[in-house]
Amino acid sequence: MASSSEGSGDALLPDFPRGPLQAYRARASFSWKELALFLEGEDMLRLKKTIFSALEDDPLFARPGGGDLPMEKYRELNFLRCRRVFEHDLLRVEDMLQSPLKVWALVNCLGMYDWSLAAKFFLNVLVFGSAIYNSGSERHFKYIPKIFSMEIFGCFALTELSHGTNTKAIRTTAHYDPTTEEFIIHSPDFEAAKFWVGNMGKTATHAVVFAQLHTPGGGCHGLHAFVVQIRDPKTLLPMPGVMVGDIGKKLGQNGLDNGFAMFHQVRIPRQDLLNRAGDVTPEGTYVTPFKDDRQRFRMSLASLSSSRVSIVGMSVVNLKLAVSIAIRFSATRRQFGPTDKEEIPVLEYQMQQWRLLPYLAAAYALDHFSKSLFLDMVELQQGRLGKDASAGQAELGREIHALASASKPLASWTAQRGIQECREACGGHGYLAMNRLGHLRDDNDPNCTYEGDNNVLLQQTSNYLLSLLARRAQVPLAAYEWLVCYLLRESDQKLNQEKRSGSNDFEARNNCQVYYCRSLALAFLELTVVRRFHEHTHQPSVPPPLRAVLRRLSALYGLWSLSQHTALLYRGGYFSGEQAGKMIETAILDLCSQLKDDAVALVDVIAPPDFVLDSPIGRADGELYKNLWGTVLQEGKALERASWWPQFSANKPVIGSSKSKL
Amino acid sequence: MASSSEGSGDALLPDFPRGPLQAYRARASFSWKELALFLEGEDMLRLKKTIFSALEDDPLFARPGGGDLPMEKYRELNFLRCRRVFEHDLLRVEDMLQSPLKVWALVNCLGMYDWSLAAKFFLNVLVFGSAIYNSGSERHFKYIPKIFSMEIFGCFALTELSHGTNTKAIRTTAHYDPTTEEFIIHSPDFEAAKFWVGNMGKTATHAVVFAQLHTPGGGCHGLHAFVVQIRDPKTLLPMPGVMVGDIGKKLGQNGLDNGFAMFHQVRIPRQDLLNRAGDVTPEGTYVTPFKDDRQRFRMSLASLSSSRVSIVGMSVVNLKLAVSIAIRFSATRRQFGPTDKEEIPVLEYQMQQWRLLPYLAAAYALDHFSKSLFLDMVELQQGRLGKDASAGQAELGREIHALASASKPLASWTAQRGIQECREACGGHGYLAMNRLGHLRDDNDPNCTYEGDNNVLLQQTSNYLLSLLARRAQVPLAAYEWLVCYLLRESDQKLNQEKRSGSNDFEARNNCQVYYCRSLALAFLELTVVRRFHEHTHQPSVPPPLRAVLRRLSALYGLWSLSQHTALLYRGGYFSGEQAGKMIETAILDLCSQLKDDAVALVDVIAPPDFVLDSPIGRADGELYKNLWGTVLQEGKALERASWWPQFSANKPVIGSSKSKL
Repeated sequence: MASSSEGSGDALLPDFPRGPLQAYRARASFSWKELALFLEGEDMLRLKKTIFSALEDDPLFARPGGGDLPMEKYRELNFLRCRRVFEHDLLRVEDMLQSPLKVWALVNCLGMYDWSLAAKFFLNVLVFGSAIYNSGSERHFKYIPKIFSMEIFGCFALTELSHGTNTKAIRTTAHYDPTTEEFIIHSPDFEAAKFWVGNMGKTATHAVVFAQLHTPGGGCHGLHAFVVQIRDPKTLLPMPGVMVGDIGKKLGQNGLDNGFAMFHQVRIPRQDLLNRAGDVTPEGTYVTPFKDDRQRFRMSLASLSSSRVSIVGMSVVNLKLAVSIAIRFSATRRQFGPTDKEEIPVLEYQMQQWRLLPYLAAAYALDHFSKSLFLDMVELQQGRLGKDASAGQAELGREIHALASASKPLASWTAQRGIQECREACGGHGYLAMNRLGHLRDDNDPNCTYEGDNNVLLQQTSNYLLSLLARRAQVPLAAYEWLVCYLLRESDQKLNQEKRSGSNDFEARNNCQVYYCRSLALAFLELTVVRRFHEHTHQPSVPPPLRAVLRRLSALYGLWSLSQHTALLYRGGYFSGEQAGKMIETAILDLCSQLKDDAVALVDVIAPPDFVLDSPIGRADGELYKNLWGTVLQEGKALERASWWPQFSANKPVIGSSKSKL
Repeated sequence: MASSSEGSGDALLPDFPRGPLQAYRARASFSWKELALFLEGEDMLRLKKTIFSALEDDPLFARPGGGDLPMEKYRELNFLRCRRVFEHDLLRVEDMLQSPLKVWALVNCLGMYDWSLAAKFFLNVLVFGSAIYNSGSERHFKYIPKIFSMEIFGCFALTELSHGTNTKAIRTTAHYDPTTEEFIIHSPDFEAAKFWVGNMGKTATHAVVFAQLHTPGGGCHGLHAFVVQIRDPKTLLPMPGVMVGDIGKKLGQNGLDNGFAMFHQVRIPRQDLLNRAGDVTPEGTYVTPFKDDRQRFRMSLASLSSSRVSIVGMSVVNLKLAVSIAIRFSATRRQFGPTDKEEIPVLEYQMQQWRLLPYLAAAYALDHFSKSLFLDMVELQQGRLGKDASAGQAELGREIHALASASKPLASWTAQRGIQECREACGGHGYLAMNRLGHLRDDNDPNCTYEGDNNVLLQQTSNYLLSLLARRAQVPLAAYEWLVCYLLRESDQKLNQEKRSGSNDFEARNNCQVYYCRSLALAFLELTVVRRFHEHTHQPSVPPPLRAVLRRLSALYGLWSLSQHTALLYRGGYFSGEQAGKMIETAILDLCSQLKDDAVALVDVIAPPDFVLDSPIGRADGELYKNLWGTVLQEGKALERASWWPQFSANKPVIGSSKSKL
């Protein structure tokens, strides 16, 4: 293996063109190819190369990606590209089941190209598909091959116009009619319309619809999922009783058609209830393998946890792309210098290093964390499908749910802030659409919202931690461990204090979020990410030439994250005196300075090929201005006179001519 | 005055429609009309009403604003609207000179409608116009009326492709040729192309171009401004030797045509040098009223300070619009509640209050600060035009420059973060383009960059403060004052330490920015904003019914800003023990809780009419879902089948058909 790496590495990882980035590349402390092989492995590198090459070689995927097209054109193109992904057969169904990490890689590679495409594919095949697979039973498996042949196109319809995060309050109903053995799906009013559903706007023929299940005489059994046909696959016209449409332009991901639907007494066969969490007999009796409602409710929403882990991965991709663009820009953009004659790359400035390198370290640390969490999740789901009902399995489930709930906020916010910092760090050129930082920010933004608002999700993690405390279970114990313990104790005390002062549970919980439980959940997750990345970079299998750079990245991410909590470290007495705080700052700046010559090579490891990165200021040849200038001039109408020129030349304003007579 | 307020107030400030926001409005501690009159005065309220009504009554300004149009269409529409602003004669030239605050109001009202429009107008009339007026002399005043009759259309061309913030490194040249009494304007290569220039892309006929002035035998006299005709007003075609075009799509403000230009030996008359900072005699001798180069350089860039103050105002407008939308949304969006039956407005959650109310307080505090700084600037400029050369005038100039340099970063970042928080606080609905938070974020974003990168500008302020220390001049002295003094001392010590350890000036300065000078400049400016707003809200003229709410806003902004520096307060010994830090947090949460019932009324004071605010979730009637649903259905094609439906229905993918043979 190791011996073949070098040879195959050259084919898999070709050298970069020489150019202005050469100076930094020559100064790197390590071989970027060796690091890429260590982190990804040959197999994964090969898969990524295959995917990227398929896109680059197919004119349908020619850049520009679509962000500049009229929305309808962009959606058409995005649909055609989605279909073409099937035609390229980039990953076989068998491989998907065998190596979930490869599915993850496929989605992230498509996302690196364009999130609208990845989302369209992902929501149909993976979210719709796995909702059926995981929440249904054998009678529903017939739908799976139809997804792959594109006989049907799916979407996942949970959120309503007036309810999102509070899923229990979903108001769509499914009443069972034993006379015809059908469920009647109904939206009581427009506020209960399904809303924000990806793929529903123009494409989906089928939806997994969440509704409150009622049986005659049995009352309401809570939220369940149903497969509902919403359009005729032959015509793409709505099915009778279904009012379905598009919610319009979003801040980003406009190649994806998010939609709404209202159901007017729409009848579906009894069998189309996804019955893993509960079923209805032909006569109308509700049966469930779960003992209590809470357990059933959790089961019916289980698929959300895996979506959250996916979002962590998506956020990491966006952060990687943004830091790649900003660091290559910073290594080639020169501004000011020690003398009037000589200007230096802006990456040489401590300020620029401090703005960007912690996000580079975060991209590496969160990338490792997201993969490890994804693998934990796969293990959990395999246990579930194997009906492992041990206490250990349940405990693992709770832990992963807690990790997923806080890692989505941490990763999506880190990416959102990092992209904005990268945008600003590239100055005006970062504000040009062609350089992609805006698209990245816009496409990343919903990661902060969907699958649960970030601030609300953090509560699930802090609840888990507080419950551990209640059970006196072992809680991890050094500065970050202290911090988490401190916040855990403080949050617990605050919660008890609120309750003693007469607040009911609802109020008490709400009044313990700010400064307490919210900080607790974030600090806990940061500690987890820091610890996993620390372990990963300190394991014996790390090739010696890579140890220094990886450990610096690990230290920088850890200290930078910790530095956001300095006030608490002082307040709680862990720090005292001026030196403690200064030492952290000095260490961060020293690490930045040590990493700046490695920054370009670190980006070379994580950046996709130029075609996929799609940013003139971030190209691997480092020819910043030539690439930018060339792209500006290529825009068809750059030099053309505006079509409306006579409006200037001939029609001069008569001052006051439109003045109101009021 | 006071007696007439009530009567005229009703016409000027009509009641809001009854609806779901009524409950909060009824609980407000004060009259929003009284507060509006106190803060703005009748005159200003009338002007704003006139401007907003003119826009609303004119079909040319019908919504949607243009953000969804193809770029060329949007630019045409924006140009036509800009011309119509002249025709509406919303502010006479005389009024402009007499009441600069009204000009400021006009620009901000146009910006509330659409920043592309405000920018197009502002860059032509005010930036181009005042560059001529302030940097030129009588011989240039002929251009001014031509701006208003739209015979010419102007732009301000300083930034080049490879240089922005480092203005000294600008490479465009202007060589004087005494034989023809002309300057030869030349771009040595494409990296020296003027770039990012607003209005230059498609519209401008004239540019104020900054170039290095050379005289025969006299060498280079540094950066000077020239009026250069770039297009023929009759045809809008480029002038000979000028290659001018459009830089393409940006993240926002796409109604504005930003452009580039290269000059190939373009000859302009000697008189078109804007000669206030220095002139060339017909024979070619360089003459200047300034003693040294630095002074002249400052003079030639003086107009930038006023642009920075304008950007502070723009940022405040964006923050006001965003918090208006998010607070009205939060007062009407219900999610979860103490029981399963009853849901409560999300504004009732401490978390939501903590996320939004500090930004509401910031909007008020920064609004007051920006107006006061604008008036300082007007005073300064009037002194300059009156040739007041006293030491006091020079000192005032330095102070205002320092305030403007740090207030642009503080205001633009506060707005950028505040808009993002508002976007997230509105959940998915905040991510719908129609609700405008995305446009606000995109349009605000360049405020962090243009007229000087935020991080770089902060250096100017810290340099000023350090120079005060050097001169042992009085530096303001309680927690914020302590903090600024602490950071000033620390920065000074760090700077000296760097120098002692052998760094040259350039390195020493660069290595003192992070954690030192940068924090110093921000803390100083925050203190200034906090102090001015405190004084404003505690003056005797504040009507008694308004005192409580204004003082709470002032306290919230002050404590919230200060809380970002808690680590330093501990580290420096100003705080010790757990209580100090907790007290600040408790006070912030208490103030949020006290202000939440006033929040809707506070928004009613600062929100423009619905037509201008242009956000279904932020309308004054509070009919959140009706407005949103209605707008979704109004989008022409919401319910229409996609034009490309046969691509789904007839063309099914053949898996692997496009598989690469590699």
